[in-house]
Amino acid sequence: MTTAAPDLMHALAEPDAADLARLDAWWRAANYLTIGQIYLRDNPLLHRPLTAADIKPRLLGHWGTSPGLSFIYAHLSRLIRETGQQAIYLAGPGHGGPALVAAGYLEGTYSEIYPRVSQDEEGMLRLFRQFSAPGGIPSHVSVTTPGSIHEGGELGYVLVHAYGAVMDNPDLLAIAVVGDGEAETGPLEGSWKGVSFINPEHDGAVLPILHLNGAKIAGPTVLARKARDEVRSLFAGHGYDVIEVEGDDIPGMHHRFAAALAAAWGKIKSIQDDARNGTWDGVRPTWPMIVLRSPKGWTGPEKVDGIQVTGSWRSHQVPLSGVRDNPEHLALLEKWLRSYRPEELFDATGAPVDAIRELAPRGELRMSASPHANGGVLTQDLDIPDFRDYAVAVQDPGAGRAESTRRLGELMRDIYTRNPYTFRLFCPDETNSNRLGAVFEVSDRGFMESVTDADVKISRAGRVMEVLSEHNCHGWLEGYTLTGRHGMFATYEAFAMVSASQTVQHGKWLQEARNLPWRAKVPSLNVLLTSTAWRNDHNGFSHQGPGLIQVVLTQRGDVARVYLPPDANTLLSVADHCFRSRSYINLIVIDKQPQLQWLTMDEAIEHCERGAGVWEWAGTDDNSTDPDIVLACAGDVVTMETVAAAQILRDKLPGLRVRVVNVVDLMTLVRPKDHPHGMSGTRFTELFTDSVDVVFSFHGYPGAIHQLVHGRPDADRFRVRGFIEQGTTTTPFDMTVRNKVSRYHLVIDAINNSGRLPRGAADLKTWCESQLARHERYVVDNLEDLPEVRDWTLGV
Amino acid sequence: MTTAAPDLMHALAEPDAADLARLDAWWRAANYLTIGQIYLRDNPLLHRPLTAADIKPRLLGHWGTSPGLSFIYAHLSRLIRETGQQAIYLAGPGHGGPALVAAGYLEGTYSEIYPRVSQDEEGMLRLFRQFSAPGGIPSHVSVTTPGSIHEGGELGYVLVHAYGAVMDNPDLLAIAVVGDGEAETGPLEGSWKGVSFINPEHDGAVLPILHLNGAKIAGPTVLARKARDEVRSLFAGHGYDVIEVEGDDIPGMHHRFAAALAAAWGKIKSIQDDARNGTWDGVRPTWPMIVLRSPKGWTGPEKVDGIQVTGSWRSHQVPLSGVRDNPEHLALLEKWLRSYRPEELFDATGAPVDAIRELAPRGELRMSASPHANGGVLTQDLDIPDFRDYAVAVQDPGAGRAESTRRLGELMRDIYTRNPYTFRLFCPDETNSNRLGAVFEVSDRGFMESVTDADVKISRAGRVMEVLSEHNCHGWLEGYTLTGRHGMFATYEAFAMVSASQTVQHGKWLQEARNLPWRAKVPSLNVLLTSTAWRNDHNGFSHQGPGLIQVVLTQRGDVARVYLPPDANTLLSVADHCFRSRSYINLIVIDKQPQLQWLTMDEAIEHCERGAGVWEWAGTDDNSTDPDIVLACAGDVVTMETVAAAQILRDKLPGLRVRVVNVVDLMTLVRPKDHPHGMSGTRFTELFTDSVDVVFSFHGYPGAIHQLVHGRPDADRFRVRGFIEQGTTTTPFDMTVRNKVSRYHLVIDAINNSGRLPRGAADLKTWCESQLARHERYVVDNLEDLPEVRDWTLGV
Repeated sequence: MTTAAPDLMHALAEPDAADLARLDAWWRAANYLTIGQIYLRDNPLLHRPLTAADIKPRLLGHWGTSPGLSFIYAHLSRLIRETGQQAIYLAGPGHGGPALVAAGYLEGTYSEIYPRVSQDEEGMLRLFRQFSAPGGIPSHVSVTTPGSIHEGGELGYVLVHAYGAVMDNPDLLAIAVVGDGEAETGPLEGSWKGVSFINPEHDGAVLPILHLNGAKIAGPTVLARKARDEVRSLFAGHGYDVIEVEGDDIPGMHHRFAAALAAAWGKIKSIQDDARNGTWDGVRPTWPMIVLRSPKGWTGPEKVDGIQVTGSWRSHQVPLSGVRDNPEHLALLEKWLRSYRPEELFDATGAPVDAIRELAPRGELRMSASPHANGGVLTQDLDIPDFRDYAVAVQDPGAGRAESTRRLGELMRDIYTRNPYTFRLFCPDETNSNRLGAVFEVSDRGFMESVTDADVKISRAGRVMEVLSEHNCHGWLEGYTLTGRHGMFATYEAFAMVSASQTVQHGKWLQEARNLPWRAKVPSLNVLLTSTAWRNDHNGFSHQGPGLIQVVLTQRGDVARVYLPPDANTLLSVADHCFRSRSYINLIVIDKQPQLQWLTMDEAIEHCERGAGVWEWAGTDDNSTDPDIVLACAGDVVTMETVAAAQILRDKLPGLRVRVVNVVDLMTLVRPKDHPHGMSGTRFTELFTDSVDVVFSFHGYPGAIHQLVHGRPDADRFRVRGFIEQGTTTTPFDMTVRNKVSRYHLVIDAINNSGRLPRGAADLKTWCESQLARHERYVVDNLEDLPEVRDWTLGV
Repeated sequence: MTTAAPDLMHALAEPDAADLARLDAWWRAANYLTIGQIYLRDNPLLHRPLTAADIKPRLLGHWGTSPGLSFIYAHLSRLIRETGQQAIYLAGPGHGGPALVAAGYLEGTYSEIYPRVSQDEEGMLRLFRQFSAPGGIPSHVSVTTPGSIHEGGELGYVLVHAYGAVMDNPDLLAIAVVGDGEAETGPLEGSWKGVSFINPEHDGAVLPILHLNGAKIAGPTVLARKARDEVRSLFAGHGYDVIEVEGDDIPGMHHRFAAALAAAWGKIKSIQDDARNGTWDGVRPTWPMIVLRSPKGWTGPEKVDGIQVTGSWRSHQVPLSGVRDNPEHLALLEKWLRSYRPEELFDATGAPVDAIRELAPRGELRMSASPHANGGVLTQDLDIPDFRDYAVAVQDPGAGRAESTRRLGELMRDIYTRNPYTFRLFCPDETNSNRLGAVFEVSDRGFMESVTDADVKISRAGRVMEVLSEHNCHGWLEGYTLTGRHGMFATYEAFAMVSASQTVQHGKWLQEARNLPWRAKVPSLNVLLTSTAWRNDHNGFSHQGPGLIQVVLTQRGDVARVYLPPDANTLLSVADHCFRSRSYINLIVIDKQPQLQWLTMDEAIEHCERGAGVWEWAGTDDNSTDPDIVLACAGDVVTMETVAAAQILRDKLPGLRVRVVNVVDLMTLVRPKDHPHGMSGTRFTELFTDSVDVVFSFHGYPGAIHQLVHGRPDADRFRVRGFIEQGTTTTPFDMTVRNKVSRYHLVIDAINNSGRLPRGAADLKTWCESQLARHERYVVDNLEDLPEVRDWTLGV
């Protein structure tokens, strides 16, 4: 039962003649502008007959999906104008760019943001020329498109973005148009289950519109060719109430789609009202979705050269491809353009006529102008408690152990409490495993399917998001932050590669957004990787891969941040910084197991502010002159091995001057011209000297350091140890041996590379080699019971 | 209607008392061995009371999913023994390792492969001790597990591997057990649609068994908590005939599961017989699947310390965790172990008794011994036509253009013809777009949903696999090659990151397999990337990312291969090599657009054999002494810019001795100790000298080259240009300008870095700068019509 006023529902479902005229005019205008973008370089309003010279020299762009996208947009605009509903529009189909750009232009938003693209003939020409042109705009919905939080480039994420956007956004309706090509991707199929996590009381609603136009680039789609009862069954199985609309007849389709949209909106309001008025039974609602079947390339040329185009994959890109050279095609194009009767749609100056303006809602209710789609303008700073209050007490470096991420969990617990509607943790079922479980003291896991009395910390009121899908977690956080709220995605290091492409694409979004002054900065995408490559006592080689660091390093310096805090206090300082930052990808890597603690909170803060520093207590360097060797490290496990190596050298080769440098902020290694965090040349020399050899132990792949220090003085002197794809089910210490980054390897490296060799060096090398040989024997002979299993510490 | 003999069907569906006894004994034995692996370091047969000293010092592993996996295995073994069906078992749940290892052990396969793990008390103790121990085996099904083609590490791929395995494998049944945790992942949800691509005539069958045991690590799963009619509806919607089995009662569950399995198998046989006897109506069959609901940790301790364990997430890992220190837990463990009555299962020596041996099928019908799961033993070399026959005729370097991948398409067309059952191309709807469409001359796209008269080159008989899912394409190819057949995955470069984690995980599989002599080498995973970062005239920044090269570079040298052929003839030579190779990841990157052709076929063959070489015709170096500068390149677009830069230098600065080096096989740059393709130091010096500066233009991220040449003489002299995350919708030439790798940038670099500056150098720099300034003005002022759009060539 709808709770909206019956007369409103009636009006929505049954558009009158004036409604139909506005809908149709708006739709024709949007289609006209779409075709103009693809074809025209001149004569935008067809004030004179079309000539070959009016046509772009190269025809690029995609028509096929666009008329459907515009049709939906028109009807949504009418719904919003009638109801005042706050809504955003996410266009899943890859190449719907011209349709959504046309919509923003008709609503006036485009010209407000890009004044040169004005609502007149000159502006329309600019609109057309910039499309798919060098330095212009792409054929997919992108960062430059007003009203978008979703790039229609890589396919698969439209639903995760929509679901993330409406979490804790009770008044927002996110329309997610899913193309039937995109619907074939794994991430998209896995994202229908968002419905199992949305609470109608404190979340907004997603209305998925599955747009089956039957074809992708070159062939039919699975969902379009499946039996219809299977399609209904599939989405009913996902948990949706399926409303179907089909056809190509006008005005019939306007009537049917208006009725479908009214029914869907009415059902959403009813679900939300029940939940918010206390009349909800607590059972997961069956949310509506619409399946829209309309021809691909709808309203385009039916046949070209005698071959069917509309309704087939042939309309995917440019239906008429020979327009400049083929007079018949040119005539067809003119006929096609004039079929929308542009003279009725735009006045003499080229501005949209009143009928079109009247369809659109006003101000921020226009979907192209929604502040939710430019979330930075809604972003409020998190209320973060003083992270110093969560410090681990450290008397002496390396004297005690703690689970570092547990402290972060406590910090996030209190962030949840202070920011009940603007912070969420997203994690694939590993919050407790990652020692972040303190958050459960103040919030359950959110879950809308049935729960039992035996379940623990899971309820429909929960706001900790656990789903065994990196794609959902990552995508929800993207949607959540792009609409202005804060959060963290915590996952296993090796499996962060599952969603690596999302990290890349979101990074690209943030990079492009930085070039657009009208896009306000949004909260950063914070990614915490635990269960690292180095600690997999019962997991095998498949769980051992620090690949995401490598991925983030490829992004531009104005977006990419990589932190490797070696202990709890540095982690707290880093996390505080990341939660306050904007528009970055912050990658934080730290193990969850009990680990040695090095720095007091004050030391940690100073260390993190500098990003890298000398640990004087660990070395034997008196700073008076250059040391004999620098032992550098980035990452918790390798830091321990480095400190242990320095200790061995101090004990057994006291004449060698060893400097220990720890790096928390990986980007400090880069030259300042390549990354804003890059330390100055002077500071680099202070830490690493200009010429002393550096034995660098790195958490990730060694090649990363080589590329980061490139261009620094005598970069060849950096001898890097790191993860070299050696691993199995084994102890953490054995992992360091297999990857040749153990303390013994580092000592040998130090001796081999130091500028000066005190007496005893040869003996120490021999001793280290014997230690490694002893270890090898142990691994072979005692499969289960190495002392390092229990005793791995500084003094092994 | 089943076409299997009615009495066989009856016997399968209704196990008699002897059947039940065997099933139950086998299952008890498998469970006993599973628990032994998790807990015991001694007293494996419980010949004496259990003591704390018998318990491993650290308890690792996962019990929860294992009894269900073993239950299914037992019933499948019975089915195989009765029917002679060839079958392989893919265990999706992450940590079912001990169950599948136990199965292989009970079948004798494990001891055949690993003789030290013999079927006696001593071997059983080894079996227990190696589990989750340093240097032992992991808690998930892995490469070391006999009968596996699927690592149970990263979740999401069990169905894609199964579907790939049965393509062109008509006699094979692949059992894919899908855990309800895994079922939440995007890739898994996207893989149910495999059913829309399997042809019962020439493909085998997949039987998915969705194992709903209700919980993942720390909470319930979506599918286990959904209403049952929704679950049925969901899978009916995917296209399956859902058979449900539920309970925990024995022998009731044996009866019900046997009946379900018989029904499923009977239906599969019926579908296949119809298709193969010509009585099939051509409509996509509704293949059976089983939904098995059994308690997590089934047969384990019901409660521990008063808290429910069986049936909850608490049984996910180690149900009794305090066994060594808590006498009550120790007693519970002993009671639990003895509940399987090991004295009935193993004889005095520790060998499985006859009742257990009798359940298993014989020889290669044992699922743990199936040659399909060690596909290298079945692999036959491809019959490849002489690739020289597809050559592009090249008169002079750079004189003509061709679409290089089109020639590869023609080669693959003829490979299809010569190898009708052992080669497939997998591609997300882009075969034609990637100019590989020649394959459609001999094979349609395969598709089992309805096709219409208007469809082109798509039918149920087709063997070109197009689905808009990188995960499906990649995973199908993995399953296809791991069972011994050949193929290629062709996709857009930027979106190869979607399945990057699969590339990583498959690489890890191949790396581990190389350490196991019993694993025969399998055909390589060939990945072709087209639509590269550099050519996106209408696509934007989201389509511009050469990230997969970076990913493959992190893999071990014995697996990773990266090729950047600059033209058609080198592509053909590289492809021929890759199709013949075994157990590699071969990444080939080349653009699909018309591009300049450089080498004759003979030159191309020699160039590819060396992997890198001097292009003397492009430079001005007389080879008598070191040149003044080396211009090196890897990748087609940057090769053109490099040759153009050399041409400018030849024309305008003839006194400068320029050497041009092109690299096809990226791994030749690495030191030989780090990669088998790495060129010798002598050869490296021949190409790059020891000390002359090198301006290196690279297709991918510049950091890759820095890491590859690390350790080569004076590696700091390599000045690398490449993709630096600058891009938009623009021309290919403008892409090179934005990323500072254009011919003008390279000339300026050459001048800035050459050892010697002839007269005119300063003027040439100024000229280059003016060319770049002119270009900038063009981009800003003429959005759509840069001359480079049409005329980008050597002489721009």
